[in-house]
Amino acid sequence: MALDFEFMTPTKIVFGRGSSDKIAELLKEQNSRKTLVVYGGGSVVRSGLLARVLAHMDAAGIGHVELGGVVPNPHLSKVYEGIELGRKEGVDFILAVGGGSTIDTAKAIAYGLAYDGDVWDFYEHTKTAVSCYPVGSILTIAAAGSETSNGSVITNEKTGSKRAFDTEFGRPKFAVMDPELTMTLPDYQTQSGATDIMMHTMERYFTCVDTLDITDSIAEGLMRTVMKHAQILHTDPDNYDSRAELMWSGSLAHNGLTGIGTDGGDWSCHQLEHEMGGMFDVAHGAGLAALWGSWARYVWKEAPQRFVNFAVRVHGIEPSENTEETVLKGIEAQEAFYRSIGMPTSLKELGIAPTDAQKKEMAQRCYAACGGPQGSVKKLDTDDMYQIYCLADH
Amino acid sequence: MALDFEFMTPTKIVFGRGSSDKIAELLKEQNSRKTLVVYGGGSVVRSGLLARVLAHMDAAGIGHVELGGVVPNPHLSKVYEGIELGRKEGVDFILAVGGGSTIDTAKAIAYGLAYDGDVWDFYEHTKTAVSCYPVGSILTIAAAGSETSNGSVITNEKTGSKRAFDTEFGRPKFAVMDPELTMTLPDYQTQSGATDIMMHTMERYFTCVDTLDITDSIAEGLMRTVMKHAQILHTDPDNYDSRAELMWSGSLAHNGLTGIGTDGGDWSCHQLEHEMGGMFDVAHGAGLAALWGSWARYVWKEAPQRFVNFAVRVHGIEPSENTEETVLKGIEAQEAFYRSIGMPTSLKELGIAPTDAQKKEMAQRCYAACGGPQGSVKKLDTDDMYQIYCLADH
Repeated sequence: MALDFEFMTPTKIVFGRGSSDKIAELLKEQNSRKTLVVYGGGSVVRSGLLARVLAHMDAAGIGHVELGGVVPNPHLSKVYEGIELGRKEGVDFILAVGGGSTIDTAKAIAYGLAYDGDVWDFYEHTKTAVSCYPVGSILTIAAAGSETSNGSVITNEKTGSKRAFDTEFGRPKFAVMDPELTMTLPDYQTQSGATDIMMHTMERYFTCVDTLDITDSIAEGLMRTVMKHAQILHTDPDNYDSRAELMWSGSLAHNGLTGIGTDGGDWSCHQLEHEMGGMFDVAHGAGLAALWGSWARYVWKEAPQRFVNFAVRVHGIEPSENTEETVLKGIEAQEAFYRSIGMPTSLKELGIAPTDAQKKEMAQRCYAACGGPQGSVKKLDTDDMYQIYCLADH
Repeated sequence: MALDFEFMTPTKIVFGRGSSDKIAELLKEQNSRKTLVVYGGGSVVRSGLLARVLAHMDAAGIGHVELGGVVPNPHLSKVYEGIELGRKEGVDFILAVGGGSTIDTAKAIAYGLAYDGDVWDFYEHTKTAVSCYPVGSILTIAAAGSETSNGSVITNEKTGSKRAFDTEFGRPKFAVMDPELTMTLPDYQTQSGATDIMMHTMERYFTCVDTLDITDSIAEGLMRTVMKHAQILHTDPDNYDSRAELMWSGSLAHNGLTGIGTDGGDWSCHQLEHEMGGMFDVAHGAGLAALWGSWARYVWKEAPQRFVNFAVRVHGIEPSENTEETVLKGIEAQEAFYRSIGMPTSLKELGIAPTDAQKKEMAQRCYAACGGPQGSVKKLDTDDMYQIYCLADH
């Protein structure tokens, strides 16, 4: 029986070519008088995007102060820097120009500006937020879905802890989505993003509770769409339509729509990857691809019908009477897809070689971060987590 | 190439058993001190729902005043009555307890309360709204999608004109969706609702512009889901899960999601039905079912590939080399579905027999209401509209 749910996706989407030129209008709708503009490395500087955005704000009389240097697996220290800068400058809005790491940093700064204590409390789940400064974004990579999601993930680089914090306050006010902005990404980043989008959908899809057909059908269609267009972009990176498909799918994959009426899904792979991302600076999507097959083989017997549906409806596998055969064909098809777009399906292919002690440490940290057993398909304890790291280490 | 778009679905969804008991909390979130409660016939009175809702409001100290008697194809006179009552009583929120007609009436009242002129101006498209009172709903039928859509449709019963008005102000603040509330509906109304949901999706699906795969896949999955569960409910009306599938699909079918990145679709059938609904008091969904096959046969040659996709992906037709054969099989499969749930596929089955003069009058009124040629697959002029009414008259 379908579970009850609450759902709200208030983010205004402004999608299409040149949409970043509407930034001043959007900030005016938000009554911003002074905006903190957060960005990452130099690409938004080199492309001229940042200068164009600031020029629009200047022309509209919207004050601004900039904070650059956000890194992938974004650091807590940058969040603290943003909170301090935002307070000093009296900003009233946080605009992220970049991808998931930049938007997540903007969200964390926004939480911190509305809170007297240490914002890391929220990510450690010892406190919860009761308000948040408004956030918006100009998205430059289709991946994390943070532009419409309620979540953000920050890494405490001193302790190596990568932690998520989700509340409805975290939903941005607007998302400017111009697929053209993603065309200059290296293929590896495009595909790592596509993998993240797939995984946001798959981790909601694989669950032990009854699901709604409408939710399943949306998730399955989304996965087929993302695979098709990721493969097109692997050989034709300038394909605007495929960029658009991936970008819009990235939002839908993580705004909650594909998990409606479920228990939220099974986020074990994300949790396992978070620990890997905290210890070895790997691309998030690539880390997920490297782990998923091992997780799937480890857990599928707890929910065989979900894995059969995945094989048949997402990968077009002809179902056989032998459930295991169908399931394994589905898992292999998913791994074949990852390889087809240059994504790893093992830790070796990912380029890391954790020692046994490191695997045990990651498993322990993961268990601790989850506050206990993790997963819906199968509840993983520390040893299960360790076993999955070992399975993936080939 | 996919078209640019803006999209925002801010309505808070509260979905599940007993969700109407959260009404006071939701109205408090909206800071309502006095709410106008709009409802239709006696069913929400007889079921005790209205009394329960008012008791929750009383307990929470939220003032209220009631306006009952909204009819299907809701009347402008009831809207005027609500505006007058709302002004006199100084309400600050409009709560619809009912289906699409009740919610549409609530929206029209909300527009009227925020406007000094005649609210019918908006529906005649001689003026546009710049604000609107806040609206929320407790939904009792899965059909119109008005609970999250930006639209409303009102009939001026003096002139027989049925007119739509769509703005982003028209999106309700919240929608309380308890599938159990729909279990007492007569099957004909359930199925007329399912047809309306199908048609909201189909009218977005059939278009001449390039579409996004992600949008198509969501629309196709939604249509398959609605057909499956409408058929289940035809024999098992108390099936909670199928009620839930239909209810959530009804919102997704009309909140804009299934039209993302298109020109909005081809709303000819809705326009043709509006005129029929204005002249003969027919159930909206049933009227759509009675017209659709004739519209499809009249226009398919303008967009054969869309009709092939519909046949293959929605109805599982094996594609043949003969496009026409595949298209017609798809149209026939859709009509077979309508018949399987007791819906008409002709005007005779719908139970109306317009004279030739009436068909001409409907065509003329439809053309005038559309302000010119109507449609995306094929632009219909007055004679085309007349021909479709004639085709359907068997």
